[in-house]
Amino acid sequence: MSETILEKTEGRVSYHDSVEEMLKRIREDGMSNVFDRYALQEKIRCKFCLEGLSCQLCSNGPCRISEKTGQDKGVCGIGNDAMAMRNFLMQNVMGAGTYSHHAYEAFRTLKATAEGKTPFQITDVGKLTWMCEKVGISTSQDVNQMARELAIFLEGQQHIGIEEKNVMVEAFAPKKRIERWKEIDIYPCGTIHEEQNCIASCLTNVDGNHVSLAMKALRLGIATIYNSQIGLEMVQDILFGTPKPHEANMDLGIMDPDYINVVFNGHQPWPGVATLLKARTKEVQDMAKAAGAKGLRIVGSIETGQELLQRFEVDDVFVGHMGNWLTIEPLLATGTVDVFAMEENCSPPAIDMYAEKYQITLVAVSTIIDLPGIKYKIPYDPTEVDQMADELINLAIENFKKRKERKIVPKVPQKIQKAITGFSTEAVLGALGNKLDPLVQVISEGKIKGVVALANCSTLRNGPQDWVTVNLTKELIKKDILVVAGGCGNHALEVAGLCTLEAANEIAGEGLKAVCNLLKIPPVLSFGTCTDTGRISMLVTALAEHLNVDVPDLPIAVTAPEWMEQKATIDGVFALAYGTYTHLSPVPFMTGAPELVALLTEKAKGVTGGNIALGDDPVQVAKNIEAHIIEKRKALGLN
Amino acid sequence: MSETILEKTEGRVSYHDSVEEMLKRIREDGMSNVFDRYALQEKIRCKFCLEGLSCQLCSNGPCRISEKTGQDKGVCGIGNDAMAMRNFLMQNVMGAGTYSHHAYEAFRTLKATAEGKTPFQITDVGKLTWMCEKVGISTSQDVNQMARELAIFLEGQQHIGIEEKNVMVEAFAPKKRIERWKEIDIYPCGTIHEEQNCIASCLTNVDGNHVSLAMKALRLGIATIYNSQIGLEMVQDILFGTPKPHEANMDLGIMDPDYINVVFNGHQPWPGVATLLKARTKEVQDMAKAAGAKGLRIVGSIETGQELLQRFEVDDVFVGHMGNWLTIEPLLATGTVDVFAMEENCSPPAIDMYAEKYQITLVAVSTIIDLPGIKYKIPYDPTEVDQMADELINLAIENFKKRKERKIVPKVPQKIQKAITGFSTEAVLGALGNKLDPLVQVISEGKIKGVVALANCSTLRNGPQDWVTVNLTKELIKKDILVVAGGCGNHALEVAGLCTLEAANEIAGEGLKAVCNLLKIPPVLSFGTCTDTGRISMLVTALAEHLNVDVPDLPIAVTAPEWMEQKATIDGVFALAYGTYTHLSPVPFMTGAPELVALLTEKAKGVTGGNIALGDDPVQVAKNIEAHIIEKRKALGLN
Repeated sequence: MSETILEKTEGRVSYHDSVEEMLKRIREDGMSNVFDRYALQEKIRCKFCLEGLSCQLCSNGPCRISEKTGQDKGVCGIGNDAMAMRNFLMQNVMGAGTYSHHAYEAFRTLKATAEGKTPFQITDVGKLTWMCEKVGISTSQDVNQMARELAIFLEGQQHIGIEEKNVMVEAFAPKKRIERWKEIDIYPCGTIHEEQNCIASCLTNVDGNHVSLAMKALRLGIATIYNSQIGLEMVQDILFGTPKPHEANMDLGIMDPDYINVVFNGHQPWPGVATLLKARTKEVQDMAKAAGAKGLRIVGSIETGQELLQRFEVDDVFVGHMGNWLTIEPLLATGTVDVFAMEENCSPPAIDMYAEKYQITLVAVSTIIDLPGIKYKIPYDPTEVDQMADELINLAIENFKKRKERKIVPKVPQKIQKAITGFSTEAVLGALGNKLDPLVQVISEGKIKGVVALANCSTLRNGPQDWVTVNLTKELIKKDILVVAGGCGNHALEVAGLCTLEAANEIAGEGLKAVCNLLKIPPVLSFGTCTDTGRISMLVTALAEHLNVDVPDLPIAVTAPEWMEQKATIDGVFALAYGTYTHLSPVPFMTGAPELVALLTEKAKGVTGGNIALGDDPVQVAKNIEAHIIEKRKALGLN
Repeated sequence: MSETILEKTEGRVSYHDSVEEMLKRIREDGMSNVFDRYALQEKIRCKFCLEGLSCQLCSNGPCRISEKTGQDKGVCGIGNDAMAMRNFLMQNVMGAGTYSHHAYEAFRTLKATAEGKTPFQITDVGKLTWMCEKVGISTSQDVNQMARELAIFLEGQQHIGIEEKNVMVEAFAPKKRIERWKEIDIYPCGTIHEEQNCIASCLTNVDGNHVSLAMKALRLGIATIYNSQIGLEMVQDILFGTPKPHEANMDLGIMDPDYINVVFNGHQPWPGVATLLKARTKEVQDMAKAAGAKGLRIVGSIETGQELLQRFEVDDVFVGHMGNWLTIEPLLATGTVDVFAMEENCSPPAIDMYAEKYQITLVAVSTIIDLPGIKYKIPYDPTEVDQMADELINLAIENFKKRKERKIVPKVPQKIQKAITGFSTEAVLGALGNKLDPLVQVISEGKIKGVVALANCSTLRNGPQDWVTVNLTKELIKKDILVVAGGCGNHALEVAGLCTLEAANEIAGEGLKAVCNLLKIPPVLSFGTCTDTGRISMLVTALAEHLNVDVPDLPIAVTAPEWMEQKATIDGVFALAYGTYTHLSPVPFMTGAPELVALLTEKAKGVTGGNIALGDDPVQVAKNIEAHIIEKRKALGLN
């Protein structure tokens, strides 16, 4: 395996026509943009960084490892494998830390809601009760008392140390996995404890062993999913409703310059939901009309958009979803955005020039967000989210007036793509008559060969935006492999039209097509965001428990065909701990670390039962995944 | 300001003769070592990394910023200042995370001790009572109940979020500082909450503003000192006694090959204390003699050594302290070490070859430590520390036998240096008759111009080991500036003979000399480890409160003349938040970030009242510090 700097495919920078169309304007307007910056950076990439052989942690450095010229260790003495794994573990800590931050906000929102201090309510009482039962909280109490107790319990589970019981893992992880994790000593404490342990291990002169560092990453991955992600997604269901499949509108064609457009971007839905609830009132629409607009609209951007999309119907106020993070600059260049409200990644740091050029008010709605040139910071507080919504609406109205005064010329690609979104374990079970047997049956019969969970971002490293994601998915569904998708990769598939019944008929193999038509589901099930990795695992766990097999025995795989940031890496590491065949593209920065690569791609099979698989060619990757699934089918006695 | 790669001074690699002497053996034996690795790395340093303009966080990277050739932003859009500050903030998170890990171990040790589950006891009941009074815990209860309640409270204070009261800051920070921190919005939550917030902010496409990132670092620094460090050091005092000044032995001459030598290395004293208590029994000494040794000895290495040294008298069992982290490889090459027990940094990752060559048993005594080739891992658990001590002693006895069998030839430099160690706020007050007025008086009179707190590591970047640290300190005491020292820099000064009454007479200026002779104190007060940064601040806080002035008004400064790792950076950042003139050498990796440099070195004065000062020349740095102190003296109306 060797690292090569992939040249950007000539001609196109994105799979999506609307992005290509907007990029023309962006370039005509002389705007710096992510696509051209990528091309510029390609000229000065560091080969050491690409191979994981660069360390800039301490003042004895920066160090590089170059065995050829005698520098086979850093100054401290660290070798190639540990250097690369330590860098990778730090990335994983960043991902885990961000998920646990999201979870913190979710749990305090639930608590404040239970105390009557937010405009939200307990929407899914059934799920609240179910969660309380799962974790041992009395359900013979008032709904709000239950919710409050659950919120405190879940935040506590993020913090548990060595001496406390990991109730979340016990409640939600597959039983056979728990045994395995104990055997190989990666059964975790809470996310925050594991983060701290990993960070301290990454300090200069602490953990210099790539195997130990890798095991710490696995332990952190398990904690992240069970002690942060699953709790936070279930809490979002409790607050805003469990996702149900329904049709929605995607792509930049949803933008209309005659409306006041408030875009919510990031991952955390709090101010977005509060503003949506408000925007649906006549009062707000009248205010918008008084300002000369046709009305005020809410637009979903990346994962925050998906969180809204999977729980709220699209209508004339909530108009849909724009796409994934690489579409943000193109969205802003449409000249239709009034407020761009950000609470997590991806909030690209150079969009102030777009705000200036196209008259957009940028607003940070979380303590973690800031950008050069940003004027408005309204950090989220659940007890003040109602006023936050008012402020955002007022800022949007004021911006609309300025946008009209400045005569910003809109340019909106006309494409609107339909997508069926809002799948969840409950929704899948619902479609199957509340039992897993029909799914098992179609898998047994080979109508569906297996299931692939796709969860990731979008990157330019392995080709134009979403090129690998979309093409790999097409290959998989052709091969009768059902795809369950989360994250920015999911938006890629939604925008590309793969989350439709038409895709089943036009692209899917015969077996999958028949199942899709029978159940009225698309061949790609939109399961939400990257934060829904835990949710996707719940479906797999249910399947494993139903069949009484361990996860590595199932005819399934995971792919992150365009991972970009650090939450994707911790999701991928969780998948490895969970025991799945886990495809990653692009190749992580570790090609200069042969023992580490061997550990993750091969030796891991004997440890967790899972492994990392690499590859940037969608056709070949799909073949490899199919071969893995067929092997697992055979072991289970299926044809 | 521009970054240059400092050439290593020709001829010497260390200030210390014993290290130079051992390096001859190391080179003759063909062993890889930190000094020669440094020279090799100097040939392939990355200029981008040195300037803070390299980012390897996400798959759109690795990116570099090169304004000259048009790459003025990373692919995501991040600029030079934010890229450098984000890298620096991640380092600070690593430092804070490691301190909070140490604190976690301290608090659960206190709790287990209070429950009678460890071989330790509540040694300083007075300090326990004082701490409980400070934080509002009832002192009208049993000592163990008090201790247990304090332990739970302190661990809780590490975790507090936005909605809870920061009792530790309120109890220990200067009142005027608290006001300032609230004004500039850096009043913190608990360390762990701030870590999480910072980590999430460092994720790709989250916080792209260097000012915001810098303010987060300041907030994290305050949390680290008050919500982790001060608590953990006070707990160590409660468990093992508050440091008192006494004479100790330093340098490699303390090693004797005829004894079984157990070395404790890192920062956390738990297994070291347990083993020392055991080693002082006749039973263990008899076992050692039965194995053919003259006895079994405990040797202190770096900060763990200092934690022991400042609380336990040196005798024929606890023989003293070897020096700082760059002396570890030389220590191991003496061929006298039987067990090298490690629980935190610095545990250099390539010492397995020393273990093999010189017959040493390496043992990890914390979950965070691992190295290639390590065979023994006994992770710390307070309830099992007694058995840990037994295991370590048995491993050492077995190693001694092998060391004799293999006829490992010892080579021990003959130098033993005396040092007065064990200062603390209590000890200083004790020397002053339990009031601060005498200190204020000698400062007012100008006998002592001011006080410099020195806390840091040891690095090769700005010259031979400890060269800047020792020479800067000599310059300062010549100028009648009292130095209060912590960290690996403190061991440099102890080994160099500056923590003696002789140093007062031979090097200090006339005023300081007179004070030292009057109070029988050295011109450099050994205040412990880098973890004692909080302890040092308690003395400064007492002074500020006594004079009713704010910290920036005091004739004091902070220096980290050889910072190396990430706990040093968070200590430095705390000093900036605390409002002090803070000298750092080497220059952090941010010279390609002019706005960031301006913020930290100049604009910060208008924000926190402190600032970062740079400079690698000890003579010039001492002049600059003196000028700052004189300016502050003038403002206070002192000559």
